[in-house]
Amino acid sequence: MRDLTDDLRWLAINSATIKSWPLDQQIEGCARAGITGIAPWRNGLADLGVSRARELLRAHQMTVTCLCRGGMFTAADAAGRKAAIDDNRRAVDEAAEIGARCLVLVAGGLPAGSKDIAGAREQIRDGIAAMLPQARAANMPLAIEPLHPMTAADRCLINTLDQALDLCDELGAGTGVVVDVYHVWWDPELPAAIDRARGRILTYHVCDWLVPTTDLVEDRGMMGDGVIDLRGIRAMVEEAGYAGHCDVEIFSARNWWKRDPAEVLQVAIERYRKFV
Amino acid sequence: MRDLTDDLRWLAINSATIKSWPLDQQIEGCARAGITGIAPWRNGLADLGVSRARELLRAHQMTVTCLCRGGMFTAADAAGRKAAIDDNRRAVDEAAEIGARCLVLVAGGLPAGSKDIAGAREQIRDGIAAMLPQARAANMPLAIEPLHPMTAADRCLINTLDQALDLCDELGAGTGVVVDVYHVWWDPELPAAIDRARGRILTYHVCDWLVPTTDLVEDRGMMGDGVIDLRGIRAMVEEAGYAGHCDVEIFSARNWWKRDPAEVLQVAIERYRKFV
Repeated sequence: MRDLTDDLRWLAINSATIKSWPLDQQIEGCARAGITGIAPWRNGLADLGVSRARELLRAHQMTVTCLCRGGMFTAADAAGRKAAIDDNRRAVDEAAEIGARCLVLVAGGLPAGSKDIAGAREQIRDGIAAMLPQARAANMPLAIEPLHPMTAADRCLINTLDQALDLCDELGAGTGVVVDVYHVWWDPELPAAIDRARGRILTYHVCDWLVPTTDLVEDRGMMGDGVIDLRGIRAMVEEAGYAGHCDVEIFSARNWWKRDPAEVLQVAIERYRKFV
Repeated sequence: MRDLTDDLRWLAINSATIKSWPLDQQIEGCARAGITGIAPWRNGLADLGVSRARELLRAHQMTVTCLCRGGMFTAADAAGRKAAIDDNRRAVDEAAEIGARCLVLVAGGLPAGSKDIAGAREQIRDGIAAMLPQARAANMPLAIEPLHPMTAADRCLINTLDQALDLCDELGAGTGVVVDVYHVWWDPELPAAIDRARGRILTYHVCDWLVPTTDLVEDRGMMGDGVIDLRGIRAMVEEAGYAGHCDVEIFSARNWWKRDPAEVLQVAIERYRKFV
């Protein structure tokens, strides 16, 4: 297991963590802080412009750990599903243009008015299958992200690492998974699932689970402020062959989003050394 | 699958749903409404007195679908774990005295200050094993309840039906499971797990998952107000041999807890006929 205490090389920052800055400031801010990796979101990319983002990322020799995000394949009708697939194809192009290591897919929840969970999961599989040829052609790995079961209804119906790996098994080359500690830490099958994910972990996301948690989406904690055994999970992930960045992704309406992003970066560096 | 539309016999009310009434009013209110089953909580039982509760339940020929709840086995030290086991032994006695069909166990989360999830799960197994001889002697089945993964940190580290069944397999006779739709509806393994639970489903709890959900514990919906395929899950549960009550358990700080419990019972009856 890598000793990260004095090795900043494997710290990356997810745009969501410092979202009060536009993407150009995020890139420059990370570079100033000595951070070598970043995970942009598509909205920030659209605001800055993809080619300008590409220039800035190159100028600062920034590793783009992933592009967040494609997905959201589920829809109440065929037109909605087709629009989602078209949008995902554009996301592949954007990810390729900025040299992202992978494109993260957050699958989507139940279509409005639907209670058909099995049907929605079929839509997800079919949606990824439909975009996969283009992703393969662009050499852009698709990183299927299992999200916490509390997001199943309205955000993501891929809810365990095993379920994501089942999809990868079915869809084949060009697919892999995101391991985000926030979504998977509780899973009794986690050790076996991470081992099963060997060679397919495309990106690794860290933050912490707060007690109490006051919101289902926007109340994540900074590493060390919660109950997740971060070192334990990283040991498993690295044992399974992962050797990339640890991407700090914190949605935090009540705390970190209210602070100066430059301060958040300094705290993230300190906590990365101490807890990740 | 039973047709419940005109058959109130299988409706039960969990005390938590109408908790602004004390237990005696709950029993009388359910009886007045034609409801034949109730699931008391231990705090209500303590307030009323166990023998008085027993009398009232008998007088109204009320089926006690389960007693809520034992569990909470995890603790930071041996004294805390022993106190939990002692308390669970008292819960077995109480459940037996009121003629409950089973005692529900909510296992407990991480001990304060701990990140050792595997160790906490061992404490849970050991705690149930320690109380099991007494439960067997009292003919009181222990109903292990998998709770939604969002409760893992601070409430329950048994988070899937398969995990609960693994525990039952390990512990043997006298153990079974609760299937509460709120906790398990999202699980991609649910159909297989319910089939595996054949003969071991001790009680079945219903409510609904709201979109959006604004609190991790106290924002459950009334049946029909959310996205859970209640008929689909009941079909699986009955296919697996369950033929008992459907216990309406709704924690709802922002809605149902604010209403007159008599009104809540009427709405529950209507929704039971239409959606359960």
